[in-house]
Amino acid sequence: MGDHFGQLFRIATFGESHGVALGVVIDGCPAGIAVDEAMIQAELDRRRPGQSKLVTPRKEADRVSIMSGVFEGKTLGTSIAMMVFNGDVDSSKYEDFREAFRPSHADYTYHAKYGHRDWRGGGRASARETVARVAAGAVAQAVLRAWIPEINIVGWVSSIADLDAPVDADTVTRVDVDAHITRCPDAETAARMEDTIKKARKSRDTVGGIVSCVVRGMPLGLGEPVFDKLEADLGKALLSIPACKGFDIGSGFAGTRMMGSEHNDPFAMDGDRVRTTTNYSGGVQGGISNGEHLLMRAAFKPVATIFQSQSTVTSSGEEATISAKGRHDPCVLPRAVPIVESMVSLVLCDHLMRHRAHRL
Amino acid sequence: MGDHFGQLFRIATFGESHGVALGVVIDGCPAGIAVDEAMIQAELDRRRPGQSKLVTPRKEADRVSIMSGVFEGKTLGTSIAMMVFNGDVDSSKYEDFREAFRPSHADYTYHAKYGHRDWRGGGRASARETVARVAAGAVAQAVLRAWIPEINIVGWVSSIADLDAPVDADTVTRVDVDAHITRCPDAETAARMEDTIKKARKSRDTVGGIVSCVVRGMPLGLGEPVFDKLEADLGKALLSIPACKGFDIGSGFAGTRMMGSEHNDPFAMDGDRVRTTTNYSGGVQGGISNGEHLLMRAAFKPVATIFQSQSTVTSSGEEATISAKGRHDPCVLPRAVPIVESMVSLVLCDHLMRHRAHRL
Amino acid sequence: MGDHFGQLFRIATFGESHGVALGVVIDGCPAGIAVDEAMIQAELDRRRPGQSKLVTPRKEADRVSIMSGVFEGKTLGTSIAMMVFNGDVDSSKYEDFREAFRPSHADYTYHAKYGHRDWRGGGRASARETVARVAAGAVAQAVLRAWIPEINIVGWVSSIADLDAPVDADTVTRVDVDAHITRCPDAETAARMEDTIKKARKSRDTVGGIVSCVVRGMPLGLGEPVFDKLEADLGKALLSIPACKGFDIGSGFAGTRMMGSEHNDPFAMDGDRVRTTTNYSGGVQGGISNGEHLLMRAAFKPVATIFQSQSTVTSSGEEATISAKGRHDPCVLPRAVPIVESMVSLVLCDHLMRHRAHRL
Amino acid sequence: MGDHFGQLFRIATFGESHGVALGVVIDGCPAGIAVDEAMIQAELDRRRPGQSKLVTPRKEADRVSIMSGVFEGKTLGTSIAMMVFNGDVDSSKYEDFREAFRPSHADYTYHAKYGHRDWRGGGRASARETVARVAAGAVAQAVLRAWIPEINIVGWVSSIADLDAPVDADTVTRVDVDAHITRCPDAETAARMEDTIKKARKSRDTVGGIVSCVVRGMPLGLGEPVFDKLEADLGKALLSIPACKGFDIGSGFAGTRMMGSEHNDPFAMDGDRVRTTTNYSGGVQGGISNGEHLLMRAAFKPVATIFQSQSTVTSSGEEATISAKGRHDPCVLPRAVPIVESMVSLVLCDHLMRHRAHRL
Repeated sequence: MGDHFGQLFRIATFGESHGVALGVVIDGCPAGIAVDEAMIQAELDRRRPGQSKLVTPRKEADRVSIMSGVFEGKTLGTSIAMMVFNGDVDSSKYEDFREAFRPSHADYTYHAKYGHRDWRGGGRASARETVARVAAGAVAQAVLRAWIPEINIVGWVSSIADLDAPVDADTVTRVDVDAHITRCPDAETAARMEDTIKKARKSRDTVGGIVSCVVRGMPLGLGEPVFDKLEADLGKALLSIPACKGFDIGSGFAGTRMMGSEHNDPFAMDGDRVRTTTNYSGGVQGGISNGEHLLMRAAFKPVATIFQSQSTVTSSGEEATISAKGRHDPCVLPRAVPIVESMVSLVLCDHLMRHRAHRL
Repeated sequence: MGDHFGQLFRIATFGESHGVALGVVIDGCPAGIAVDEAMIQAELDRRRPGQSKLVTPRKEADRVSIMSGVFEGKTLGTSIAMMVFNGDVDSSKYEDFREAFRPSHADYTYHAKYGHRDWRGGGRASARETVARVAAGAVAQAVLRAWIPEINIVGWVSSIADLDAPVDADTVTRVDVDAHITRCPDAETAARMEDTIKKARKSRDTVGGIVSCVVRGMPLGLGEPVFDKLEADLGKALLSIPACKGFDIGSGFAGTRMMGSEHNDPFAMDGDRVRTTTNYSGGVQGGISNGEHLLMRAAFKPVATIFQSQSTVTSSGEEATISAKGRHDPCVLPRAVPIVESMVSLVLCDHLMRHRAHRL
Repeated sequence: MGDHFGQLFRIATFGESHGVALGVVIDGCPAGIAVDEAMIQAELDRRRPGQSKLVTPRKEADRVSIMSGVFEGKTLGTSIAMMVFNGDVDSSKYEDFREAFRPSHADYTYHAKYGHRDWRGGGRASARETVARVAAGAVAQAVLRAWIPEINIVGWVSSIADLDAPVDADTVTRVDVDAHITRCPDAETAARMEDTIKKARKSRDTVGGIVSCVVRGMPLGLGEPVFDKLEADLGKALLSIPACKGFDIGSGFAGTRMMGSEHNDPFAMDGDRVRTTTNYSGGVQGGISNGEHLLMRAAFKPVATIFQSQSTVTSSGEEATISAKGRHDPCVLPRAVPIVESMVSLVLCDHLMRHRAHRL
Repeated sequence: MGDHFGQLFRIATFGESHGVALGVVIDGCPAGIAVDEAMIQAELDRRRPGQSKLVTPRKEADRVSIMSGVFEGKTLGTSIAMMVFNGDVDSSKYEDFREAFRPSHADYTYHAKYGHRDWRGGGRASARETVARVAAGAVAQAVLRAWIPEINIVGWVSSIADLDAPVDADTVTRVDVDAHITRCPDAETAARMEDTIKKARKSRDTVGGIVSCVVRGMPLGLGEPVFDKLEADLGKALLSIPACKGFDIGSGFAGTRMMGSEHNDPFAMDGDRVRTTTNYSGGVQGGISNGEHLLMRAAFKPVATIFQSQSTVTSSGEEATISAKGRHDPCVLPRAVPIVESMVSLVLCDHLMRHRAHRL
């Protein structure tokens, strides 16, 4: 029931971390959009483990195959299926977690909810499921670019632990971001973040942080009144990413400390176009995009899998001590960037179609 | 398209601020639940304007009528319709906003999206629509109490501007909260908040703040893997409330600055029951409730309607200056508390049904 | 859960036969469509009881009120609520059915499913709920006419009991249909149908029949592959009408007896336009409209409420004998015509939006 | 948008006839259900071409692989993906249909709707997509059997062209049905049907017919009021099968010729159980199952692909003549039986979950 996302550009994902394959079915992609495996693969490569010394050295080639929905390089308008087969996985490192629940993981809640659990590599609860989000997001981006050539979605790591990076959301590019293995486009902060991550790894610990995301070239009028406000759907999208525990848009939490007179964004004409002279609203007013930049943040808790010894209990109700083995990220933030961008793309593509459906 | 919420306990709301009536249709409420107008009214009265000297002195009686779905004091299992007729409304104060867009309001985006706008009292974009959320939330709470008698959902104002209240989420009650017109249960902070709100009003300005919400007596296993994680659906629910621009759960944004070893919640047995000894997860792990208290926050920007003069433009593209007239809240936080509780109730009721549907 | 219909033009209906009111919320109607109470009322008047000597003499004025979503005569793009208050209802005639289940009615199944039942006038299971369908259908027709001026949806009674009317689907109009109280546009058959219905009433019995419906001026490309084929969604729509137990389209059941070589519709050019020279497909091929006339039939069983004595059981498991009192239709077919047209309109409006959402 | 089916037991299918693979993702299957490839394969083998001399001699091994959602022989509660890779396909026989539209096929409507079409083997519009329905239906049947051991779903060919088989719906079994290559369990009619099909093939023509389906051991209370009546959802399910142009339930079209006094099903006690003494309602009253046998029919038009020469037009608007090559079924009815059973299973499984979700 939770494996679906979207209303008109609707995806269903599947796959366990150490199962046969992961994948996604996209239902509702318009016909005639240029899509091929190379463009999907390029996004997957940005998410892939083993990209740099900072992230897990696991080798997951993550080769995508398009199974349906694309013919002669263009979408057919019918469902697009994409798969990534799991390579040789080594589940032996997870044997200890077959019975004992890893603290702050999904082990216990899946056990309690379903009574039957794939313990290998975290099963369906593994962040490996985000492969499918990124594959679908690549297609959503192709649709967005076809309809709104000027749209530009850029995510970056804006904080790691207590390090905050000064980044200009009006100008930052994916090239700037990908130039740093931390995916923080501010070189100085990036260097300090690298140190922080390495230090965490050395002490067998993990760190969290914040991914920011801007959308420039936003169309006017996306989002729906009342429940499907654009920030509500973006919030849901990002909060569904593993380890995400917070979301805000525009001034967000900080804005709660401002006065209305400071916070309001005055309107002014910019040639023919209505603009605001500030953007505390983050590009959304009354739940609907006003054409200004979308600017949002997603808070990621530190990775739960640590190499230190921790207290826990087993499925038979006995107390136990466990510690992780194998290869795990000390910090997921760099790899979270393309995932955030993908989820934002999925929401925008869906809302763009919803908007088009109702226009006279 | 945005007027629906929920999958199994599904609501559709309607109504403009100065239209004939507002209301809601609930589709999917189980049969046999005791529901009457008095219990709905009690919740509406907590949301109603004019409750205290802090909030708008507008007199909106907001009397609810049940139109269908309840017979002899119990739900029928079929759709429940509830309505609140608008009393004598005075749209004259809004004449200035017929052409000129109020900054940081929905006026411009609705104009841009629909080309036809009810300018009276904010129309559909007015926070008056939350009447319908609270009426539906009251029914959701009746269902929750019928199925989980121990459940306890309590919201409160945890900050106003830069004033933060120390509140014990393990023990705070609705009685504590409603004892203060600010709905901040900490007496000392409440008094200072009152001053801050009065000062804002005197300077024809407005303030924002944060509503916190705890759910105690949570059932285990609510929430779905991947996209419909409990925090994702709660986030969407709260971010859809007018003026809400941020959401977090558990350690949230603050947790991004912790180490994994501090942040992980160790498991321990408490008699037969698996518990965690800390609750940085906020009661949700892997998107599914673990039985610990849900603890979340919603950030509300300062009210956009201020009595000061502001720069704006009109629908014909001319620059203009406007200032609000009439009666408006200098701070919506106290009235937001029952709205937050209602949205949380709707999400939990929906997820409880989803969980029950799939249990063998 | 069953009170919703549609995906993009989505309705939620409510109301019991003898409750306070019936109504509908439409979510997803485009903005700027001319809608007023008079146009809704005109359709409701075609469905209303007491129109002629053939149908029930109950006086239900069925005055519609628009509660939201329309401003200055045009839709706002947000949810439209419409209500019909129930007048003075007389539930006393239903006292006998409080405990005893009427054969072939919903009394027993509602009792079994919900354990709590509104026995007054059939409650939610009464065909009186179709008021809401017709009100929503009138709005759907307004949208269709705005987008496809040439569209023309005409239903008629094509059979009553064993009387079949020869009607030319290419030319029949609503004026032709409404000229006869049977809503059969063939004068000679109409007269015989009138006799049959009167004879049934005299013998305290009831009759069934078939409503046919044609859509001329159909746009090309409506319907979706695989599950949401146009005939599948039309079938669901009509089969959801009370007493409808069968549906077919094009050659339908009769087509199962033809050879492929007879049944196939050859293509030919008609100027620039691709046409078929026959239309056994009923305007739908591969689930998608081909621009030819849609032609479908809905089978209605005879009315279950008869004035003869019938064997049944009570909710406490005792055998009993009942017979209906009060005012009931001996034949619902004439009143079913606008209901069929409304459901067809709702499906087409929804699919038109779905189609537009995905067009490049 | 049309590639999804179901609300709680929700499937998304994909795949073109001559593409890489076909498959399905099931979202919402309960955890702990015994599922393996052998049980899926058994159902696929009943649908497979090349089973008998009556159906197409194409060799499609149709081997199913479970990609996710099943672990140690039991469902995990998360999404189940299944795939069938297409073997060596020969698209050369379809070269003629690259430009010219086959009469009464989806070629033209897909071309018109999407502007880009996979002409190989019919692409997404090929009935080969039903592989995915049958795979999903096998899982739905496993769930139904786990929850309602006494349930028994049996489909059969009840007519071919003008040959109608007398079959006792109260006793017919799948063994009886599968004993005949026509899947008509009445031996005498089966033999005549065989002749009719062979004669059609010899004359390079095709025939249609009717599949009937009974469900015995039905639970009480499935189906929802108003729009999601059980017959409406069953109707949609069967009408979505390729070539299906009609559906009825219980007395169906024939019942329109009966009087109410004949048609009503009297209630009587059968021990503790409320039963009806006749079953013209086909097991559904007021849209909700009454525990009696469900009995329904689906009308299939004759196969559109014939080996005779036919008039048509091309995508560039020129008139043309085509005739089919390759291997095609002269009659799809025998292979439609497991497809009908699968769709019925999907509807019942979905409605069973919906019912469970709302029960106090």
